Amino acid sequence: MTATQVIRERRSIRKFKKGEKVSDEQVHLLLEAAMLAPSACNTRPWEFIVLRNREKLDEIRSIHPYTNMLETADLAIIVSALPRTQFKAIDSGFFPQDCAAATQNILLEAVAQGLGACWCGVYPKEALIGQITKILDLEAGVVPFCVIAVGVPDETGGSRGFYEEGKVRFI
Amino acid sequence: MTATQVIRERRSIRKFKKGEKVSDEQVHLLLEAAMLAPSACNTRPWEFIVLRNREKLDEIRSIHPYTNMLETADLAIIVSALPRTQFKAIDSGFFPQDCAAATQNILLEAVAQGLGACWCGVYPKEALIGQITKILDLEAGVVPFCVIAVGVPDETGGSRGFYEEGKVRFI
Repeated sequence: MTATQVIRERRSIRKFKKGEKVSDEQVHLLLEAAMLAPSACNTRPWEFIVLRNREKLDEIRSIHPYTNMLETADLAIIVSALPRTQFKAIDSGFFPQDCAAATQNILLEAVAQGLGACWCGVYPKEALIGQITKILDLEAGVVPFCVIAVGVPDETGGSRGFYEEGKVRFI
Repeated sequence: MTATQVIRERRSIRKFKKGEKVSDEQVHLLLEAAMLAPSACNTRPWEFIVLRNREKLDEIRSIHPYTNMLETADLAIIVSALPRTQFKAIDSGFFPQDCAAATQNILLEAVAQGLGACWCGVYPKEALIGQITKILDLEAGVVPFCVIAVGVPDETGGSRGFYEEGKVRFI
């Protein structure tokens, strides 16, 4: 599929074919896509956890109210931010948008691989950050940014996105 | 080009072929791509300015130290955030990452269209936000998020992104 098509076909997938696997090669392609996102001054303020451990996936489901699709997902990728990599006046504070660009690349690469994904926000919700830090035993300074459920889609239907003329101004 | 290729070929373009035009149809595809990005609770907290006015482009260059490539760019797209659309406990505060996902879609769609682009950060830098608000005469509540220079690339060279094994943990 062309990039133009993939961008238009991407949607949040909340039901996956249970038991159908995402291959290690596919996981590698997702992570490679993530790390090719741009970042402020090329600081690359991110880390990734590939979570296949069913117990931990269920723990996240139990504390994050919008991650029910993890029940059927084969795995989750947790994108974590490293704010400490951005300490200069020029690049400080950009880490949420850099991690978001990496996340968007994962979602698009998933579609390109015939997979589905759902972006579940964590940052900047303090309670969720604290709970996921504990579940995944993250080091100090590593901030869980989002949980991406990944699997083989078991639902169809178009994207909810659309072009809105009223949101554009020409100068 | 496939999405997998486009994600890998994208790089920040800082030199454009002066005088070569980005068509209205291409601009439409860039904006459509942007508005197909996911957002917290589908709040779509964004607006877009397509800026072809040379005087305004030069004004932005004069106040933003990392937008020199606007000299050769055919146009800029200014992605603006609408924080007021996210006022509930569940979706508040996600607008920077939502606007970043929209921005990343624009960058990728640009590559798909044979164009080049460069993401110049504005938010969360207060001084830049204030100056660009003034230059573009933005309404209260509209926050300039980034400036994307767009044009026909006049430089080659690979992406600076790469897969870093040390940034991945498997659980």
